[in-house]
Amino acid sequence: MSVLIVGSVALDYLETPFGKMEQALGGSATFCSVSASYLTEDVRCVGIVGSDFPEEHIRFLTSRKIDLLGLVREAEGKTFSWGGRYHDDMNTRDTLYTELGVFEHFHPVIPEEWKKSEFVLLGNIHPSLQMEVLEQIEEPRLVVCDTMNLWINISKKELKAVLKKVDVLILNDEEARMLTDERNLIVAGQKMLRMGPKVVVIKKGEHGAVLMSKDSYFSAPAFPLEGIKDPTGAGDTFAGGFIGWLARTGDVSVANMRKAVVYGSALASFCVEEFSIDGIRALTPEQLAERFATFRTISSF
Amino acid sequence: MSVLIVGSVALDYLETPFGKMEQALGGSATFCSVSASYLTEDVRCVGIVGSDFPEEHIRFLTSRKIDLLGLVREAEGKTFSWGGRYHDDMNTRDTLYTELGVFEHFHPVIPEEWKKSEFVLLGNIHPSLQMEVLEQIEEPRLVVCDTMNLWINISKKELKAVLKKVDVLILNDEEARMLTDERNLIVAGQKMLRMGPKVVVIKKGEHGAVLMSKDSYFSAPAFPLEGIKDPTGAGDTFAGGFIGWLARTGDVSVANMRKAVVYGSALASFCVEEFSIDGIRALTPEQLAERFATFRTISSF
Repeated sequence: MSVLIVGSVALDYLETPFGKMEQALGGSATFCSVSASYLTEDVRCVGIVGSDFPEEHIRFLTSRKIDLLGLVREAEGKTFSWGGRYHDDMNTRDTLYTELGVFEHFHPVIPEEWKKSEFVLLGNIHPSLQMEVLEQIEEPRLVVCDTMNLWINISKKELKAVLKKVDVLILNDEEARMLTDERNLIVAGQKMLRMGPKVVVIKKGEHGAVLMSKDSYFSAPAFPLEGIKDPTGAGDTFAGGFIGWLARTGDVSVANMRKAVVYGSALASFCVEEFSIDGIRALTPEQLAERFATFRTISSF
Repeated sequence: MSVLIVGSVALDYLETPFGKMEQALGGSATFCSVSASYLTEDVRCVGIVGSDFPEEHIRFLTSRKIDLLGLVREAEGKTFSWGGRYHDDMNTRDTLYTELGVFEHFHPVIPEEWKKSEFVLLGNIHPSLQMEVLEQIEEPRLVVCDTMNLWINISKKELKAVLKKVDVLILNDEEARMLTDERNLIVAGQKMLRMGPKVVVIKKGEHGAVLMSKDSYFSAPAFPLEGIKDPTGAGDTFAGGFIGWLARTGDVSVANMRKAVVYGSALASFCVEEFSIDGIRALTPEQLAERFATFRTISSF
């Protein structure tokens, strides 16, 4: 089934204890789309890039069969760029710069033939842009919303308006606590469920992820990694894998969302093993299936 | 099968955001023994109390069919007492006082008829006392060792000597990092496996627990609690449930230890719901079975 993904497309500067990378392909829509493309066909990407966006990235995205009809390519201006430096523990990072470029005046325009997309992933962008997407789409089967600490800090009101209209909210533990002013994640989850979403997924990095609905709770382990090279895009990759599995199966039951959480976790675990998009640039179906199976092995008793 | 448990028996002062309790029954041997008694018979407790130790606590422990042959009751002197205050987040605590009392000169003496105990749990006490136990027991099937941050700080050398002689080490994530100087828990686990134990169990509180051996890895979820009243004894309760299940089944395979981790987690989840030992004072087999089943439900996909 069709998956519409809206978010940023970026050329990032990344610095971690393991090295640096300039002009690294990044952005929420990029990671989400590439990740989803491992699970389902008809992935539709909406975003914007500048004249500096390398043709090789377009070729790569197209090779993943991601439909770029909704990717605006501005003749002038630069692609959105974020520079970040991760500290030794990889849990904290400094933003070195944010250059909005063509993203500054971006308003997502959903192509007419995509307005009836069945699955919609509102990637991590300003909530008012997410709302603009919601106003253009028609009768989606499922809307998934990702977000980040920045929007909770500066645009909580707009975010809460979006949350009233989405089916699934995905965020990390720190963000869940910020959004709800509640330390206990179980209580935080219940508070978020009262904000609109029918399902909330809280990502906890090395501690896995939990999925909560009104009457069910699921805890997924993390893949045991001895180290990570670059955490950038892990959350987006998770979200893309999550919605990718739901679109592939056409099953939006909470039971099936448990598997979606594990696929999201599996793809995110590949993502952080390499810089930028490289960890999920060329996975085989066998690699993904094997990692999914490992999640089962490590959590069985 | 028989389980020998050595540790402290205490009368604690507890203060949490939910209240206070004076003269609260506590101590590592207490929590371990009571917890194990829900899973297996022939639980043998070695420790020491003073003349102030209330008879009602003896009656309670005896009612749980815990054999107190190894519990020295000094005619003079006070029972070990720890006073602690937990902060709002329940993750940090201040030690208000530590009164060693009769524990100051305690040296565990294993009764002759207990020297061939099949399962041995070295509860959380000074590693040199744990070593004294190891020197007295004969051909145990399995030795499990618990410890705490204090011993890692002040008696690392003695602790490392003990670790060379135990089969399973149980500790929490903070302690694992302290013991190994390694932030990544997977790498920390591998380092600890090289210190002696064949199996390492790392407890992560609200994030569950992981079990690692040379060639296997298991991640258990945490029971989703909306809040905890008193974390005291949760780690001891975990260890008691862990060894209790192994003793009940007589199966020391790593596969069976996965179930043991879940029983330990289940009992610990009851423990923190009430002050002191009250959360595990009077559980029914049905309650425990139901909580074990819940761990399966919340981790299945």
